[in-house]
Amino acid sequence: MAQIDVANMEGDIDYDTIMKEFGVEPFDRFLPQMKKSHLLFRRKIIFAHRGFGHILAAMHGKKPFAVVGGFNPSGNLHVGNKIFMDQLLFYQDMGGQVFIPISNDETYVFGKTDKLESATDCAMKTVIPNLIALGLDPKKTKIFISTKTSKAYELAVKLSAKTTFSSVKAIFGFDNQSNPGKIFYSVMQTAHILFPQLEEYGGPKPVVVSIGIDQDPYMRLARDLAEKIGFEKPSSTYNRFLIGLQGGKMSGSKPHTAIFLDDDEETVRKKIIGAFSGGGASLKEHREKGGNPDIDAACQYLKFGFEPDDKKLEEIFAGYRNGSVSTGDVKNLVIDRVTAFLKQHHNNVEKARKQVDKFLIAP
Amino acid sequence: MAQIDVANMEGDIDYDTIMKEFGVEPFDRFLPQMKKSHLLFRRKIIFAHRGFGHILAAMHGKKPFAVVGGFNPSGNLHVGNKIFMDQLLFYQDMGGQVFIPISNDETYVFGKTDKLESATDCAMKTVIPNLIALGLDPKKTKIFISTKTSKAYELAVKLSAKTTFSSVKAIFGFDNQSNPGKIFYSVMQTAHILFPQLEEYGGPKPVVVSIGIDQDPYMRLARDLAEKIGFEKPSSTYNRFLIGLQGGKMSGSKPHTAIFLDDDEETVRKKIIGAFSGGGASLKEHREKGGNPDIDAACQYLKFGFEPDDKKLEEIFAGYRNGSVSTGDVKNLVIDRVTAFLKQHHNNVEKARKQVDKFLIAP
Repeated sequence: MAQIDVANMEGDIDYDTIMKEFGVEPFDRFLPQMKKSHLLFRRKIIFAHRGFGHILAAMHGKKPFAVVGGFNPSGNLHVGNKIFMDQLLFYQDMGGQVFIPISNDETYVFGKTDKLESATDCAMKTVIPNLIALGLDPKKTKIFISTKTSKAYELAVKLSAKTTFSSVKAIFGFDNQSNPGKIFYSVMQTAHILFPQLEEYGGPKPVVVSIGIDQDPYMRLARDLAEKIGFEKPSSTYNRFLIGLQGGKMSGSKPHTAIFLDDDEETVRKKIIGAFSGGGASLKEHREKGGNPDIDAACQYLKFGFEPDDKKLEEIFAGYRNGSVSTGDVKNLVIDRVTAFLKQHHNNVEKARKQVDKFLIAP
Repeated sequence: MAQIDVANMEGDIDYDTIMKEFGVEPFDRFLPQMKKSHLLFRRKIIFAHRGFGHILAAMHGKKPFAVVGGFNPSGNLHVGNKIFMDQLLFYQDMGGQVFIPISNDETYVFGKTDKLESATDCAMKTVIPNLIALGLDPKKTKIFISTKTSKAYELAVKLSAKTTFSSVKAIFGFDNQSNPGKIFYSVMQTAHILFPQLEEYGGPKPVVVSIGIDQDPYMRLARDLAEKIGFEKPSSTYNRFLIGLQGGKMSGSKPHTAIFLDDDEETVRKKIIGAFSGGGASLKEHREKGGNPDIDAACQYLKFGFEPDDKKLEEIFAGYRNGSVSTGDVKNLVIDRVTAFLKQHHNNVEKARKQVDKFLIAP
């Protein structure tokens, strides 16, 4: 469930077309109803959903609900992953149980690594300590590595008999060269999504899955299969992607397009100074004509969370548009914010390494 | 790995044709070489093999080796299963580590039960206590239920990337209606076969799998994939099937064709008295013309283990052929032997129920 790697989506993404094509609904209508919100909702970074009403009802009614956010352990985490985690932490604050499946099987059967062990190692040494460091509460969080708990396989087996090869092929487009693990992973990821509804975690309940729109096929399958085993249909929300530092798409495999959570201060400074600017060609031109914060990488970092205050963000963006705030001003602010965040984060990661066992589900 | 249910093989089985079709080799040549043997070998009930030389070398050289015998938990065990276990116990006596995968996933994804839990229950309450009762040593045996240990799924994932849908389809004949679990089970059963070669069980080593010839496709896949992950090619032996009590095929789903391990004395008596006879139409005719022990169900029970002494068996068979031993004589002997065995077995099962944990692999 890599939430950032949008397969085959390069450059500008037309989110309206996406909503129509995937048949998901716009999120807007829930905004006035939310008693507590989060900047990712208010700033319409979370732009679409399936069945979110059930989650809102559970949050407002103080009923049990869960959130699932999966990770594909194929490398270092980056700011996109941090933003994704911000959503999970919001639900955690709202009383949700957090479930984080780490799909080392996916990494391997989709050929992102030659060795399954590398993905498992990446999960244990990189992904999990970083996620914990971002603020997970061990009392409210369950993390599991897909091949390290038999419960996931068992649920996937149960689900598999409720579908057929032709159904999953129609959704995911397998061919003769697909390996059996890749085919089976269709029900395995479905099992990850439905996992919080297992009897040992309190049985059927509303579950929200934060995903990238590219992962929606799994969601459709999960909603279809849930009912067939007496579980509730899971809900989902879909988020816009933070643009890359050079404009266009951010990618975990292209270091210059993103800030990584293990980047040092100097690297961060260099990356942000060199980032794509939506401002004028010169400071003079910028002061005269202003710039466009919507395509400015540094401005977008503020929007996606590094400026938590909505009003201040608006002021900065307004200033950027009229030229009173320069690209340099914004970049300096982002450098300060990101380096401060990372300094704290690096400390947290070291502490988190000792806490991994508190979060892991027994095999 | 149901070792008795030979799909689509009804009535007489032509074992010579089978050997040619499957490309397995006759077992005969090993008989003179075996320092210790077992009646199942000597009586040519085990009739074919792949790579058995490696196992013989390990046994004679006192090198580590393992034996795998899988069970599909879909009902009560019968004498066919007992005979199968006799093979495993022979290898246990010869110093082999015994591994018994119980494939509740197979039972479910192949539609032999509507509920995965029923298969799991059958494994825990019926299959495992009965297998233990037959003489397994907890120090030399590992039993696992397929969906209850993540190690099996993990190994299957590893194997899956070494093959393709078209390869497993060519072997097992999947179609569009096959569920993804059934497709994945091709590598899952391969994982069961290669399981003893995992690092935690001492790494690569000779492994022999006792199977019915119908399960040979899994064996071919296992031998192919073993080398791709640095494991030794597993060996296999193939056994003839005990005929049904009514002649023809014995089936676990047809109670009148087999003695079940939970049958009471009266049931056993009735089943054996009513069993298909290879003798004359009347006692007079039998005394004059003799009978054919090869098609006589009671005689075959003796051959498959209820007469452990080879010489006595030959005498009985010779007497049966010349008419001096009657069908009634043989049936009475079989009733005595089977009821004595079952009486002891039922006691053993009750004791075995308390020992299950000693045999199970941790999840």
